[in-house]
Amino acid sequence: TQASAFGLKDPSLIKFQGFIDGKWVDAKNGEKISVTNPATLEELGTVPDMGLSETKEAIDAASRAFPAWSRTTAKHRHDILLKFYSLMKEHHDDLGRLITLENGKPLAEGKGENTYSASFLEWFAEEAVRTYGEHIPSPISNSRNVVIKQPIGVVSILTPWNFPSAMITRKMGAALAAGCTTVIKPPPETPFSALALAELATRAGVPDGVINVVPTLKNVVEVGKEMCENKMVKKVTFTGSTPVAKLLYGMAASTLKKVSIEAGGNAPFIVFDDANVDEAVEAAVICKFRGSGQTCICANRIYVQSSIYADFASRLAEKVAAFKIGNGLEEGITHGPLIHSRAAEKVARHIDDAVAKGAQILVGGKAIPNTSFFLPTVLSDVPIDAQINKEETFGPLASLCKFETEEEVVKLANDSDVGLAGYFFSRDVGRVWRVAERLEVGMVGANTGAISQAVIPFGGVKESGIGREGGHGIEEYMNTKLIVFGGLGMHG
Amino acid sequence: TQASAFGLKDPSLIKFQGFIDGKWVDAKNGEKISVTNPATLEELGTVPDMGLSETKEAIDAASRAFPAWSRTTAKHRHDILLKFYSLMKEHHDDLGRLITLENGKPLAEGKGENTYSASFLEWFAEEAVRTYGEHIPSPISNSRNVVIKQPIGVVSILTPWNFPSAMITRKMGAALAAGCTTVIKPPPETPFSALALAELATRAGVPDGVINVVPTLKNVVEVGKEMCENKMVKKVTFTGSTPVAKLLYGMAASTLKKVSIEAGGNAPFIVFDDANVDEAVEAAVICKFRGSGQTCICANRIYVQSSIYADFASRLAEKVAAFKIGNGLEEGITHGPLIHSRAAEKVARHIDDAVAKGAQILVGGKAIPNTSFFLPTVLSDVPIDAQINKEETFGPLASLCKFETEEEVVKLANDSDVGLAGYFFSRDVGRVWRVAERLEVGMVGANTGAISQAVIPFGGVKESGIGREGGHGIEEYMNTKLIVFGGLGMHG
Amino acid sequence: TQASAFGLKDPSLIKFQGFIDGKWVDAKNGEKISVTNPATLEELGTVPDMGLSETKEAIDAASRAFPAWSRTTAKHRHDILLKFYSLMKEHHDDLGRLITLENGKPLAEGKGENTYSASFLEWFAEEAVRTYGEHIPSPISNSRNVVIKQPIGVVSILTPWNFPSAMITRKMGAALAAGCTTVIKPPPETPFSALALAELATRAGVPDGVINVVPTLKNVVEVGKEMCENKMVKKVTFTGSTPVAKLLYGMAASTLKKVSIEAGGNAPFIVFDDANVDEAVEAAVICKFRGSGQTCICANRIYVQSSIYADFASRLAEKVAAFKIGNGLEEGITHGPLIHSRAAEKVARHIDDAVAKGAQILVGGKAIPNTSFFLPTVLSDVPIDAQINKEETFGPLASLCKFETEEEVVKLANDSDVGLAGYFFSRDVGRVWRVAERLEVGMVGANTGAISQAVIPFGGVKESGIGREGGHGIEEYMNTKLIVFGGLGMHG
Amino acid sequence: TQASAFGLKDPSLIKFQGFIDGKWVDAKNGEKISVTNPATLEELGTVPDMGLSETKEAIDAASRAFPAWSRTTAKHRHDILLKFYSLMKEHHDDLGRLITLENGKPLAEGKGENTYSASFLEWFAEEAVRTYGEHIPSPISNSRNVVIKQPIGVVSILTPWNFPSAMITRKMGAALAAGCTTVIKPPPETPFSALALAELATRAGVPDGVINVVPTLKNVVEVGKEMCENKMVKKVTFTGSTPVAKLLYGMAASTLKKVSIEAGGNAPFIVFDDANVDEAVEAAVICKFRGSGQTCICANRIYVQSSIYADFASRLAEKVAAFKIGNGLEEGITHGPLIHSRAAEKVARHIDDAVAKGAQILVGGKAIPNTSFFLPTVLSDVPIDAQINKEETFGPLASLCKFETEEEVVKLANDSDVGLAGYFFSRDVGRVWRVAERLEVGMVGANTGAISQAVIPFGGVKESGIGREGGHGIEEYMNTKLIVFGGLGMHG
Repeated sequence: TQASAFGLKDPSLIKFQGFIDGKWVDAKNGEKISVTNPATLEELGTVPDMGLSETKEAIDAASRAFPAWSRTTAKHRHDILLKFYSLMKEHHDDLGRLITLENGKPLAEGKGENTYSASFLEWFAEEAVRTYGEHIPSPISNSRNVVIKQPIGVVSILTPWNFPSAMITRKMGAALAAGCTTVIKPPPETPFSALALAELATRAGVPDGVINVVPTLKNVVEVGKEMCENKMVKKVTFTGSTPVAKLLYGMAASTLKKVSIEAGGNAPFIVFDDANVDEAVEAAVICKFRGSGQTCICANRIYVQSSIYADFASRLAEKVAAFKIGNGLEEGITHGPLIHSRAAEKVARHIDDAVAKGAQILVGGKAIPNTSFFLPTVLSDVPIDAQINKEETFGPLASLCKFETEEEVVKLANDSDVGLAGYFFSRDVGRVWRVAERLEVGMVGANTGAISQAVIPFGGVKESGIGREGGHGIEEYMNTKLIVFGGLGMHG
Repeated sequence: TQASAFGLKDPSLIKFQGFIDGKWVDAKNGEKISVTNPATLEELGTVPDMGLSETKEAIDAASRAFPAWSRTTAKHRHDILLKFYSLMKEHHDDLGRLITLENGKPLAEGKGENTYSASFLEWFAEEAVRTYGEHIPSPISNSRNVVIKQPIGVVSILTPWNFPSAMITRKMGAALAAGCTTVIKPPPETPFSALALAELATRAGVPDGVINVVPTLKNVVEVGKEMCENKMVKKVTFTGSTPVAKLLYGMAASTLKKVSIEAGGNAPFIVFDDANVDEAVEAAVICKFRGSGQTCICANRIYVQSSIYADFASRLAEKVAAFKIGNGLEEGITHGPLIHSRAAEKVARHIDDAVAKGAQILVGGKAIPNTSFFLPTVLSDVPIDAQINKEETFGPLASLCKFETEEEVVKLANDSDVGLAGYFFSRDVGRVWRVAERLEVGMVGANTGAISQAVIPFGGVKESGIGREGGHGIEEYMNTKLIVFGGLGMHG
Repeated sequence: TQASAFGLKDPSLIKFQGFIDGKWVDAKNGEKISVTNPATLEELGTVPDMGLSETKEAIDAASRAFPAWSRTTAKHRHDILLKFYSLMKEHHDDLGRLITLENGKPLAEGKGENTYSASFLEWFAEEAVRTYGEHIPSPISNSRNVVIKQPIGVVSILTPWNFPSAMITRKMGAALAAGCTTVIKPPPETPFSALALAELATRAGVPDGVINVVPTLKNVVEVGKEMCENKMVKKVTFTGSTPVAKLLYGMAASTLKKVSIEAGGNAPFIVFDDANVDEAVEAAVICKFRGSGQTCICANRIYVQSSIYADFASRLAEKVAAFKIGNGLEEGITHGPLIHSRAAEKVARHIDDAVAKGAQILVGGKAIPNTSFFLPTVLSDVPIDAQINKEETFGPLASLCKFETEEEVVKLANDSDVGLAGYFFSRDVGRVWRVAERLEVGMVGANTGAISQAVIPFGGVKESGIGREGGHGIEEYMNTKLIVFGGLGMHG
Repeated sequence: TQASAFGLKDPSLIKFQGFIDGKWVDAKNGEKISVTNPATLEELGTVPDMGLSETKEAIDAASRAFPAWSRTTAKHRHDILLKFYSLMKEHHDDLGRLITLENGKPLAEGKGENTYSASFLEWFAEEAVRTYGEHIPSPISNSRNVVIKQPIGVVSILTPWNFPSAMITRKMGAALAAGCTTVIKPPPETPFSALALAELATRAGVPDGVINVVPTLKNVVEVGKEMCENKMVKKVTFTGSTPVAKLLYGMAASTLKKVSIEAGGNAPFIVFDDANVDEAVEAAVICKFRGSGQTCICANRIYVQSSIYADFASRLAEKVAAFKIGNGLEEGITHGPLIHSRAAEKVARHIDDAVAKGAQILVGGKAIPNTSFFLPTVLSDVPIDAQINKEETFGPLASLCKFETEEEVVKLANDSDVGLAGYFFSRDVGRVWRVAERLEVGMVGANTGAISQAVIPFGGVKESGIGREGGHGIEEYMNTKLIVFGGLGMHG
């Protein structure tokens, strides 16, 4: 069968249809999206290219499923989500492989994503039973104020291809835990992970209509619009680029919908001269090149203080030169392809621009023709006005600038319309607090490139986003309701 | 002098200029807005009709003031806000009178608003020093997660005329406490209260640029647009109508700004047959007719269970018939005018529509010609399809419908695109919890019409708003920042 | 084998030895405690009767295990506790049976206890990763305040026989989750459940020394004293009678140890004339007779308003008359024996006293000779000065008093030195809030007899206890540490 | 008059009587305590030496006042406490002077204490209206869980002479805010500040019986016993020595009262070789010598890493040599006397012991005969086994030890039965986190000696205390009550 080509132990995890109201369905007009393995450029399979009509049906289904699901106890949803979590762990190898197949990241990263992805189901299951409200002391003798949390309603979820699984569970896990129902638009590049999640949800006992998955490519504009404007939808949550975020946000405004947005970053990575340089180099390798630089919290601009600049640059270049590029399923491969050749073109543009302005290529610097691969690259002496210092590269390109003072580098780091993550290395406890507070970002790694866990508040400031995911992120899917109990016969 | 005409003990509270960067200024083109006393239709005075240029200057000033203000300690801001609060209490009579003069509400309500308005300064002063972050247990031995709260930046504040003072302090108090700086667009009908607040803020020691007030009437569209789109602004907060809210929200989307919105309501008020009818009538009087029905949490649709319907209707009509209408400054006046004659026209339209569909006028029913006054009105037998059941009247019109069952009335109450407040009366503890949970609103009064206090979360669901004010509302003006401290030399 | 006599599927859950530092051990002097099935009075088996020396060894072991266990990540402990939880569910039938064998409660209640007991492991696993500290805004520009939670140290746990398993997990689960190590003194009547928990903990990966179990009978005074006075112990937690609680508390004072105490209750159960009497009778049956009245939150004093008194009494007597008494392992048995004949004697004393003062026996009223069984009893017209209104019966005796007014019955209910749980039935929402607030107890059931869940704060006021278990109870096992980061180079 | 001798602007703040049930009263037997100015050894005045009978009356009064006070709204108590706070600020000079007169600390410190003391009234006023309870999601469809906070009841407060005012407000402020009533036993050395607080409380509108002050000296044992054992008292809070703490704790156990204890410390102060030595010396001066070393968080053991030891020692000795000793009311005096000559004797014993074991006196080293003054002293080369390393000196004696490694010094620092505060200086962010986590104390100053503010959790671990004051300390005066609302007619 077609599914068996994926090489999974449980081929029934592979679905070639969308998922609406508990049923696996094709597009009404029979259109399909061809999904390609970016490492081989071969077609993995197809999924329906759905449109407005299917989207409306999915929203209707979610809306019909809402009353019953929202009134289950938090403990009931907790138990179902934990079962769902167990299933993700049980199928760990398959789900990790599937991520690698459609996204291209090395298998270790694919499995790592599955672990990370599943962790959101566990986390939000546990959060569900802790959606505490408040009793607020009343200034009126005869009244009592109780605040409760209630699920917000139907949620539209729109997600990117760089984390085909985790970006869904981080939203869907919270939404389901809160008692919401969902309509998910997965990215056309990586729909299979999304569909596998829907299959496991069903096995875990998630009722029909609570999760709906609507793949789309050609009709993305009208599908997105419906997901943001339909009156039955009460919340839109999106991870993706800043320009698309603005469009969706504007659509959501038309019905005053609540939104959560995780948009682009342009993370500074600063190495002060009082840093542990070994640790800084190690962190730069991970933080810059994970997913071949295609994560929204990847370091994008690396600033190194002048006295250690040369040392840092040469050590980083040496590490990068040792990377093994190739098909992520193969043993020993450390870095895979980009998602498609358009992505590689942007990297090339950034390099050309920087080189034209005086930068030096220390290693890498070009794409592998007729593939989605781009050689991991380190650029030195990148001038401040290079394009890469203005916008996310989203590729395997480490760009190094030199700086002199703390004041200067903080200013450079903050000279951006976005602010998701930022990193810096320094041993001085005063500098650590100062720079951490002054970086205009949502998340700071001080002496570490590893900041992301289910437990922490993930999100950005400025044009990087609205709201926070993980941590207390279930709040984003709940309304706060005040109940004033009056007329109690209590006086004075 | 012109100011002395207001009859205040401290005439220097009256300002006829806008307030930018600590200076009292006119519009550059000299244009003015004429502000009228709605009870007498006489001009109270003028304020500048500012435009784009002044708005930009105000935003620039707020942006320049932000770094220093945001780095003061929370305790410092706490102390300044408490001084500001003391000044509002010291000038209580003047500020209450001023509200009555420009808004028309009876003097007792004017003073009541001042008390309420000042309470937000006290509340948020106390909140400032309690903007706790978190230490989150790390799953990584060698990292520690600390979450801090930081002020979001420059805030645009747009407010309505029905609470000329309190709608400002509820936002500005929170913003200042958080460490933000502000640009305020007061309503053209009631700018004097806003300007008096700016004067008192200055006396309290709020630095130049931290509060800016930009009155406008003719240029409201371009001023609003600038306040929502200027990149230096990081947050927009608005109280007003739902249609305007949608416009502003859409503008804010263009730069992914955070928004808080308190838009229109259409509050149901339900009386079950197991209610204490005396208390229900009393509450309906207050809840429907406060501010002559011009508050966003006023009851708009009154549903009474059939067995007590006639009794409730006659008791309510009797109470309403006893109201004393007139200039709110005069002794014994219980209800003042509407804000202007346009408001009265909408009430008349709602009455005409309901009567045409079969409703009965029990008392009142018409405007007083050539004034802004409308006779407090009670309509009986209002059919479900009447216009008043679809949209806010925002006037002194109590509309009574009959219902039979709990199920039925909850459905009627929820048949609305908005959901701000809702009220119901029943003695049964089970019904109280059931109906309180099922009403699709942000705030429920059970056996009471009095729900609003600085301490509670004020806000709505559906198209009634985004975010909550009062209570923990300072959060709306702060960013959550994660700091991961890594490289600590701690292992296992 | 001896273990096989218990009839478990996994006989290796039965241990006849104590558990110290990961090893199953006998008492040094070879002494043993004979454990009896209260339904049959036959010996189930023996466990060591340990003393001072073994207790010191256990405390030493816990103290040695503390540094490593306390420094594991919260996530690590979370995972181990969840595995422990899974094992308790896997062995559900065995563990339920074991509880019935040693405690006597019907099998359904034995299994119910196992479910309840396991729920604490799940709950506290989930709490472990949520032991958030705080970042507190500093009034000093150059300092930052971070508050962290750390495990308190070695914990002594002393538990009763009425919940042989759940009273242990409620404490041990929290302690382990927090990072503490423990020494447990199980009750001599029901040590096997405790030892089975130690076995499962080991299978789940809890390291040696983290849990130690020291059964004792003859040496209980010196063992208890060591557990409360040994300097290595930092916390004592006890569930049992108020007199013993006072002794242990006094011992703990000698080294300023923190204590948590759940001592005796004397729960009032009030039925107002506006109650749903059916529901009240149903609740009284459960709330009074669960565990044959041997739970600390059992209703002890039933007050019924005069107009419904006769009706309530006859309905309750009818229900009680239908109970099936017998060996809890047998099909259809609703109520088992008391723990031993001493317990039955106290019930008889309370009946004799009440009858002597004028009470009527509606049903039951005597023990079954030569057994631990006592006939479930309803007493009517019990005078206020009866012994049963002063102290807990801890047996199957429902004592009914008549009252006239809310004021009167609240006063009666509060006329007690203890205050654990209280119950009342009334439909009026005002009365519900009033009485709930005025009852001097830690836990109130309004229109319900079911108040206990892992999620809620369990505990009493007055002489019923110190601290709260369940809910946020992990706090009781943690120290709050303030870290002030100064000298940061931040000024103004 | 006698009062005028104190030289206050408002002599009516000086009271020579106890305060019971709103009345100023003498001891029944007419006995008096003579209160002495420690700087001059002259009598300041007398207060009654009360006993068991007066204590019982005070507890009765507090018990009678409890119902009404506990049922006022939190907002009402907030407003009264803020008025009380304003009065303390209004009488700042007088209250500061009074502290200096009876305690001996320099006037700047006396005034500083008044500011600190008043800050607790402000803080807890603000906390009163934030004593939030919870709404906990119920696992039962038909129940709702609400948790409320209620005042615990009558509180016994026992305080020391080193902060005659602040140690009272830190407890009483929290107690009153919570809705409790209080009986205060001030120290016999410094009762006037306590009585002045009672006077201001009355002026602020605190009702009769809510605060009672019972000075005692000869009868301290029986008064303390009654305060700890009387059944009407529900909570005991004490600041003082560890031995007395144990006695009181043991007494409180007899009726299972809740206790809060702030007992002795023995604070380590560590200077690592990567510290900013200037800042470390500066901090040592403040942290060791404030109040002439008579605060419970004073540094007691100073450990300096070997490479900077000599430098640190000489710089510290130089600073200390420059102190100006004398009557705290005089201009330019930096350090006052000890509280009495017994205190000086202990300092001398510690010096003699250390010198006998090999320590060097760098500066100071002896008392001024026939006074309460002791010369500020720096000891070098103090051996680990010196008495001063085992117990608090509570005097102006800086004791310096040398150490080599982080591991070693953490072990030395933790080798103590108590653990209140600890300090260390190091610039390395990893060491800061490591050492901060590993010190077994309740409060850590990292690169600062200033840790105490109303906002932070003040308290210790091990034998230094139970509970936390300041910050969320109002919780210590409240019971947590669960209300389960059942029978709601909600199913599934």
